[in-house]
Amino acid sequence: MTITRNWLDHAEGSVLVEFGRTRVLCAASVTEGVPRWRRGSGQGWITAEYAMLPRATHTRSDRESVKGRLGGRTHEISRLVGRSLRAAVDLAALGENSIAVDCDVLQADGGTRTAAITGAYVALADAVSWLGQRGKLARRTPVLQSVAAVSVGVVDGQPRLDLAYEEDVRAGTDMNVVCTGDGRFVEVQGTAEDGVFDRGTLDALLDLAVGGCATLTALQQQALTR
Amino acid sequence: MTITRNWLDHAEGSVLVEFGRTRVLCAASVTEGVPRWRRGSGQGWITAEYAMLPRATHTRSDRESVKGRLGGRTHEISRLVGRSLRAAVDLAALGENSIAVDCDVLQADGGTRTAAITGAYVALADAVSWLGQRGKLARRTPVLQSVAAVSVGVVDGQPRLDLAYEEDVRAGTDMNVVCTGDGRFVEVQGTAEDGVFDRGTLDALLDLAVGGCATLTALQQQALTR
Amino acid sequence: MTITRNWLDHAEGSVLVEFGRTRVLCAASVTEGVPRWRRGSGQGWITAEYAMLPRATHTRSDRESVKGRLGGRTHEISRLVGRSLRAAVDLAALGENSIAVDCDVLQADGGTRTAAITGAYVALADAVSWLGQRGKLARRTPVLQSVAAVSVGVVDGQPRLDLAYEEDVRAGTDMNVVCTGDGRFVEVQGTAEDGVFDRGTLDALLDLAVGGCATLTALQQQALTR
Amino acid sequence: MTITRNWLDHAEGSVLVEFGRTRVLCAASVTEGVPRWRRGSGQGWITAEYAMLPRATHTRSDRESVKGRLGGRTHEISRLVGRSLRAAVDLAALGENSIAVDCDVLQADGGTRTAAITGAYVALADAVSWLGQRGKLARRTPVLQSVAAVSVGVVDGQPRLDLAYEEDVRAGTDMNVVCTGDGRFVEVQGTAEDGVFDRGTLDALLDLAVGGCATLTALQQQALTR
Amino acid sequence: MTITRNWLDHAEGSVLVEFGRTRVLCAASVTEGVPRWRRGSGQGWITAEYAMLPRATHTRSDRESVKGRLGGRTHEISRLVGRSLRAAVDLAALGENSIAVDCDVLQADGGTRTAAITGAYVALADAVSWLGQRGKLARRTPVLQSVAAVSVGVVDGQPRLDLAYEEDVRAGTDMNVVCTGDGRFVEVQGTAEDGVFDRGTLDALLDLAVGGCATLTALQQQALTR
Amino acid sequence: MTITRNWLDHAEGSVLVEFGRTRVLCAASVTEGVPRWRRGSGQGWITAEYAMLPRATHTRSDRESVKGRLGGRTHEISRLVGRSLRAAVDLAALGENSIAVDCDVLQADGGTRTAAITGAYVALADAVSWLGQRGKLARRTPVLQSVAAVSVGVVDGQPRLDLAYEEDVRAGTDMNVVCTGDGRFVEVQGTAEDGVFDRGTLDALLDLAVGGCATLTALQQQALTR
Repeated sequence: MTITRNWLDHAEGSVLVEFGRTRVLCAASVTEGVPRWRRGSGQGWITAEYAMLPRATHTRSDRESVKGRLGGRTHEISRLVGRSLRAAVDLAALGENSIAVDCDVLQADGGTRTAAITGAYVALADAVSWLGQRGKLARRTPVLQSVAAVSVGVVDGQPRLDLAYEEDVRAGTDMNVVCTGDGRFVEVQGTAEDGVFDRGTLDALLDLAVGGCATLTALQQQALTR
Repeated sequence: MTITRNWLDHAEGSVLVEFGRTRVLCAASVTEGVPRWRRGSGQGWITAEYAMLPRATHTRSDRESVKGRLGGRTHEISRLVGRSLRAAVDLAALGENSIAVDCDVLQADGGTRTAAITGAYVALADAVSWLGQRGKLARRTPVLQSVAAVSVGVVDGQPRLDLAYEEDVRAGTDMNVVCTGDGRFVEVQGTAEDGVFDRGTLDALLDLAVGGCATLTALQQQALTR
Repeated sequence: MTITRNWLDHAEGSVLVEFGRTRVLCAASVTEGVPRWRRGSGQGWITAEYAMLPRATHTRSDRESVKGRLGGRTHEISRLVGRSLRAAVDLAALGENSIAVDCDVLQADGGTRTAAITGAYVALADAVSWLGQRGKLARRTPVLQSVAAVSVGVVDGQPRLDLAYEEDVRAGTDMNVVCTGDGRFVEVQGTAEDGVFDRGTLDALLDLAVGGCATLTALQQQALTR
Repeated sequence: MTITRNWLDHAEGSVLVEFGRTRVLCAASVTEGVPRWRRGSGQGWITAEYAMLPRATHTRSDRESVKGRLGGRTHEISRLVGRSLRAAVDLAALGENSIAVDCDVLQADGGTRTAAITGAYVALADAVSWLGQRGKLARRTPVLQSVAAVSVGVVDGQPRLDLAYEEDVRAGTDMNVVCTGDGRFVEVQGTAEDGVFDRGTLDALLDLAVGGCATLTALQQQALTR
Repeated sequence: MTITRNWLDHAEGSVLVEFGRTRVLCAASVTEGVPRWRRGSGQGWITAEYAMLPRATHTRSDRESVKGRLGGRTHEISRLVGRSLRAAVDLAALGENSIAVDCDVLQADGGTRTAAITGAYVALADAVSWLGQRGKLARRTPVLQSVAAVSVGVVDGQPRLDLAYEEDVRAGTDMNVVCTGDGRFVEVQGTAEDGVFDRGTLDALLDLAVGGCATLTALQQQALTR
Repeated sequence: MTITRNWLDHAEGSVLVEFGRTRVLCAASVTEGVPRWRRGSGQGWITAEYAMLPRATHTRSDRESVKGRLGGRTHEISRLVGRSLRAAVDLAALGENSIAVDCDVLQADGGTRTAAITGAYVALADAVSWLGQRGKLARRTPVLQSVAAVSVGVVDGQPRLDLAYEEDVRAGTDMNVVCTGDGRFVEVQGTAEDGVFDRGTLDALLDLAVGGCATLTALQQQALTR
């Protein structure tokens, strides 16, 4: 996995995450002010949008802009990324600023939503620094903790970390786990469409996930100190 | 919690679930045949749609049909219900039949998505029986296991089962768990938008959830044998 | 026909109307203020929205929210219900308050639009009382008169009151009549898609309709004094 | 009122109706075949669409194509025109042909929906003749009777025929009546948003309407024999 | 080509352009004020919308309002007309007024976009005069120059002016040219979907176009002085 | 300007074009078969879609997929790219295959539409080779000629090639020119929203454009032979 910061020239924070053949471009955009329902609260707001380019995948998909509506999967992942990022930040310290993080999948090969979260955190951290350098934060350090995410699953009866696309298809169980840098949980989403899982399997998957997130946390820190 | 079967006259399976002040109407509709992408597979298909009436909640919401688009929350829950129901059924045994389960929230007071899943399973079981009585199943018993769902969360530092709406707002952590009748997991979705959770809390919440699902499983069985 | 008031806990007025196998849930929601184009007029505003659950009918219909647009029939009936309710109320006496009445058909067996109007009036009356009890009306009694509605039609050459679904389909002529409590007309909508009608038939249908509305008016009064 | 046939060069039937300052262009388009749900029935189908140009009215309205959705009024009138035209024709005699009649209001000054019906009938009759001349009808004379429509209303307490726009605004009651050439009723739509009406008023309005339609029927016959 | 001014009674400027069998109705609507992004600039704004009635063409097209979205061709031509009209006017002299010009094709027989521009200019000039007569302009003469447009193309190897529909289909190259009254260029749009063109052909087409626009300019002046 | 081929792993042809700070990802996707209206013609079909990522520009734009509709600019450019690419190919030689070329602007700094065309041609050429290697072409060499595009304009009275974004804003005239490899024209689009241009300026701009396209043609050839 490689994390390239400042891949874009205009965005306040931007990252190209490459993870196997998966490539996700994460761009954090700062706006002064917050949505109407939040004005006067003294608190900031963070949103995320996830999307795939039409030919990110093996066969071309129609554009959601052409179809005129967002699919359920897009909605679901955008919401997941947004919640994960908000857990990383003290919104009161952010002040009444908004940060929108766009995660666009340029190429997909499994694990796009977890790559998106992992890269989006780095872009977000850069955007918060950008605000700090301009004296626009309500308090000094809005970032409470880093967040990173991995996919784990059971393939042919074995728990596995970071499912690539081919395995993903054969996986009976698929779990996305978002952890903080110190190993606590932000999101745990386990799905067993083709075969339920018992408590022992769940425990094994969580152990794997916590370990995987720790590795990614180290990569994020490296990237941010470079 | 009460489960009233056959609340509707036309649907192949229908249930009114009442859970505190929450009321969800679940209707299972059978169609012969499957979507185009599944034809010739010999397998059936199950989908779900979740929606709220505009005045289900304390203040009126605009209709999604009037706005012309589904919100992200609606999409997310519809997909969750659909996956949960498919885990209950052997789709090959169902044969090339489709079952669409509509979960419409007539009144909301917390826990609507878990009430929807719990009721939808009963409506689905009735729709499968309806197919069986007409000799339209590929094999005799497509229902592999029952599924039921609960919400659990941490309120004021305490793990709690079946969060009602007021508590829901104060909850730092919220987890929806879908279990089979024998206590294994179908879906685990934990979210910590306002405060992360550690492994101990996760374990306590899962214990509570498994216990809660067992109670609902018993209620479902009672309803189905009445 | 039965009219159950306060079927919902949150709405300012709510009614479940049951009429044969038809069941319509009517919920009146009060908001302070009026739409922009009416501000400063000193007058209130009343709107209505009519919709059917997907499995209200014999075969499942696609949701209008999923299709992303309202059908013509939905639009037409929503407008009819709205006009009928506004005829019942002195909008100046209502003051600058808005009432939105949602009529959701839970099960359909003919006559859903007339059941909706008849129930919606009772929900509206309760919502107006709710405003009165809180001292929010411009004048004491905004409700000028009750409104109720029936379907009449010609089936096999005979004028008939309250068409059930089966009859509805065979009817050459179909007329919806909305009357006030004292027998005057608010709306008269006669349609003869399969066979025109002469003045004598029209007169006979109107006589039947006025009689039918009188019966419903009595039921509404009973419900409101209970 | 003037009716100009063949105002367009391409359409199988076309009429420009001018009625005071109201101008409606009615174009009937023939297609072989019928919609899927009607195939194999041996019967034809007739639809209508009504729309206004943005600057047909005193102030410009936004285009429904730009807004991305049809308004309720447009839907309601399109359906009314369609039902009225279908009442004029024996759909079995039409054979499996479809006729779509577009009624576009170029300028509006009251009575656009009734002008549309009156003109659309003439365009429809021409389109049926076009089919007849090409030997494409199932039987010789699908047109059963002519249809024409008028608006009547009560203005300052007086029943009035053919409400122009200014009066329309002051009208307490507004009724659209569609009659056949021999004076029977196809559609009767009376609305009393600002003031209910009694049976005597209804009778007086119907008398006026029948008389008005007779005049228009004569004009239609003149136009068709020219 | 004929240009009929004041074809509509309500619009501040309106023109029916007839050009062969092509007929386009151009209506200019004045509003005080400008869009939000332009407020306080002291400058006016001009927009255009182009559309076709469903039966303007040989076979009926579906309405874009019914489909719920504008097609690319509609968008492209609306933008072209808007840019052309803005080039004719000194927006600072116009003051903070908006003019929307609707170009609705009643019948199409080739050259609709160029007929639209040519007619729209005349409607626009009338709308500007309307503002001038009411003392609402920032400076006396906002109209800098007239604009007119023609289609030219290569048919069977020969450059041709004013392509009618049949030729249009056979044309390898199609060019729309918008000129000012004194022969300078506002827009040049040449397309060679079926066969590229060399510099010599381009020069010949431009010569033809400039000549054609001069003829239209004379017609516009005649129309405006009548 | 750099052209990187095979930037994606899945697409049949893909190119990252970098031109100053502008970066456009072009992906060509092959499908067997053609749209319904073209079946049986023996001819292939080529389409293009152009879009911008939300943070390609200095300030973030809303996603068209979230807004639920394509903007006019997107439509206009997509059509321009599609027409340009079709001019490069003998569609009969392509056989009944479809190629969709997606041009997604990752970062914008002026000239995105011309960079898109220039890169899309290379991706298209690779996709055609891919078909050729699999023996799926109707004839051997469907590519007739290369196409490349440049922007030219007048800035401060001087004709300039390859307008960067800052100049673009100050440009009175803006022209996009698409040329074949041998210097003939495919598209010429000149716009003078703020100041018309005379024939001399047009000639100077065309000279500049032809020269610029020749340079790009050389770069494309280099890229394709590497």
